[in-house]
Amino acid sequence: MTTSVVDNGVNVEALLGARDAFADAPEIAQFLWRSTVTWVNGTHSQSNVETFYGFGEEQQHRQTFGFDIDHPLQFASEDNGITPVEYVLVALGGCLTAGIAAVAQQREIQLRSVRASVAAEMDLHGILGADPDVRNGFSGVTVSYQIDADATAEEIRALVAQSQKRSAVYDILTNPTEVTVEIC
Amino acid sequence: MTTSVVDNGVNVEALLGARDAFADAPEIAQFLWRSTVTWVNGTHSQSNVETFYGFGEEQQHRQTFGFDIDHPLQFASEDNGITPVEYVLVALGGCLTAGIAAVAQQREIQLRSVRASVAAEMDLHGILGADPDVRNGFSGVTVSYQIDADATAEEIRALVAQSQKRSAVYDILTNPTEVTVEIC
Repeated sequence: MTTSVVDNGVNVEALLGARDAFADAPEIAQFLWRSTVTWVNGTHSQSNVETFYGFGEEQQHRQTFGFDIDHPLQFASEDNGITPVEYVLVALGGCLTAGIAAVAQQREIQLRSVRASVAAEMDLHGILGADPDVRNGFSGVTVSYQIDADATAEEIRALVAQSQKRSAVYDILTNPTEVTVEIC
Repeated sequence: MTTSVVDNGVNVEALLGARDAFADAPEIAQFLWRSTVTWVNGTHSQSNVETFYGFGEEQQHRQTFGFDIDHPLQFASEDNGITPVEYVLVALGGCLTAGIAAVAQQREIQLRSVRASVAAEMDLHGILGADPDVRNGFSGVTVSYQIDADATAEEIRALVAQSQKRSAVYDILTNPTEVTVEIC
């Protein structure tokens, strides 16, 4: 008799349960994620995240999460918070890492530690309008993982690959999304 | 004699100065933005942002900025922080808003208040692997601005359009970026 003692803290049963529930009622899988942003001064703004819609009804986070966004001192700003593009890196690292934990739980692989460095190249000629051939965003992004787990190197590679395949933020970066900006 | 008293807190001269400096030494416009992410437990991870490379040398933020990323209670997680996809919305709102302030300063338009709601639709059939035809990321994103400024409605529309045109995060969402995930 073997007893699984793998515990990465992810409730895989709940996630698979949600997938089954979506099969019966596809409309409850339609989510709406939200934030608000309020300009403070200069390049400094504040963003709040509190509610979302999903599972067929309005949902709330445990608390309102607030974030400061700014440009650094080196751009003659006040560095009251990280830059918008750095928030994208926070999003990407968090998404892939949660995916690694979830897939590891499902595959009964005990994780010991997972760390990554995320780095994005950007040519500022784009955003400053100095060269029309240079894009505003990243030229490329690299995520480098160091993972300690009860698994072979091959199993760890497969974990990361599966997380990448199912990651929302990886998809958002690598594929285009329609964004509408309107004035009320 | 007219005296411009428009002050949105953006040092436009410094930004234009940077653009001129880039013309003389294009290599100093090559930036590298960074974050680290460390898995905590379950879907909870922590990300730090502290350094970046640009203007030809290593740079530091005023402090290390730390962020918690998690899934909400409704996904059988602990809601220790906002989800990865919500960080993308924080990034987008912050980027467009800083751009509006910078462009307004350059056009000598005094801003009174700028607020926006950011909302992103997502069908969870994608991320849960329940339907291969549904993408993991957002189906679409809408940013709705309310702007009070000493300007006509037409000038405000033009402000927002120019910010959109020069926004790094708007570009990152609407166009594909190559992302490499590796294991060290």
